Amino acid sequence: MYEGAVQDLIDELGRLPGIGPKSAQRLAFHLLSADPHDVRRLVDAINEVKEKVRFCLVCGNVAEAEQCRICRDPRRDQTVLCVVEEPKDVVAIERTREFRGRYHILGGAISPIEGIGPDDLRIRELMQRLADGEVNELILATDPNLEGEATATYLARLLKPMGLRVTRLASGLPVGGDLEYADEVTLGRAFEGRRLLDV
Amino acid sequence: MYEGAVQDLIDELGRLPGIGPKSAQRLAFHLLSADPHDVRRLVDAINEVKEKVRFCLVCGNVAEAEQCRICRDPRRDQTVLCVVEEPKDVVAIERTREFRGRYHILGGAISPIEGIGPDDLRIRELMQRLADGEVNELILATDPNLEGEATATYLARLLKPMGLRVTRLASGLPVGGDLEYADEVTLGRAFEGRRLLDV
Repeated sequence: MYEGAVQDLIDELGRLPGIGPKSAQRLAFHLLSADPHDVRRLVDAINEVKEKVRFCLVCGNVAEAEQCRICRDPRRDQTVLCVVEEPKDVVAIERTREFRGRYHILGGAISPIEGIGPDDLRIRELMQRLADGEVNELILATDPNLEGEATATYLARLLKPMGLRVTRLASGLPVGGDLEYADEVTLGRAFEGRRLLDV
Repeated sequence: MYEGAVQDLIDELGRLPGIGPKSAQRLAFHLLSADPHDVRRLVDAINEVKEKVRFCLVCGNVAEAEQCRICRDPRRDQTVLCVVEEPKDVVAIERTREFRGRYHILGGAISPIEGIGPDDLRIRELMQRLADGEVNELILATDPNLEGEATATYLARLLKPMGLRVTRLASGLPVGGDLEYADEVTLGRAFEGRRLLDV
């Protein structure tokens, strides 16, 4: 519809998640007429992320060194491990200031519909972390939806022989929702009231 | 919340129009884990637009040369000029294949609330284009809302002494729509503008 470069940009923006054709067009025209310095800052920020950011070798969270800030912090409790789906869940939990242990990021949840099985998640890495016996409680903080519950149940069964205390965040989280959208108070309560998974 | 580069990218994305904090976070994580080639293509498309695209010296539309494709096209009727607010309006009108004249882009509409007056629009350029007397019909295709109507009225008064044929796009019921869902103003306009069925 537009001449070369504008249409190319609309096409590229339209490939981003949650950006439809109208939004892509609006964004393209915004970038087109925006201050070149502002656009430069955006482009630099994208390039920086692609160059600098990697994933923590221990927990799988985003990091700018071999290990993320939390794994490097000696004050964090090594005996409690909180298992989440994504890095953004770590941010949500950190905001509550309820949890002083460490994290393990699975990289998603079991979802037969999307073709995601246990082997696609960082479960092998979790088992390796648990091998030295230092962790004695595992909090399964996957999302309170179908996939998250299935993943928690799968992990609880897998971990049963290890004799760990395995807990799940308390209900209080809206069922069917996404963990990242919970407000701090609700998420804090859910930590307080976590229950033993007896499978 | 996040470490340096990720948070910087979330901040930059959050400055874009229509992108809230949650969308910015989702986009940042998408870019973070996306194929570097795809991200490269997006960054290149942004840079291309900033380098190549400028505004047509004649009509103000986006262009990759001094003049846009439409102004360069000798087959377009020089005697009819369609005045629109934004380049995206040109795309919408071109899709109808109803119009074979040329365009003039104002760059917005008069809006006292947003502090946009006649001097902020490309009205001086419009008067200069009309000076040679080649144009004999001017179609005011600004948006059918408060600002667009005000702009059209302002232009119609300004142009009256020139003795041009000045028209406005018809208001009425959207084709394929339901009469009962039309708002009162639209339905009122449709009554006013009713045409004789000559069968």
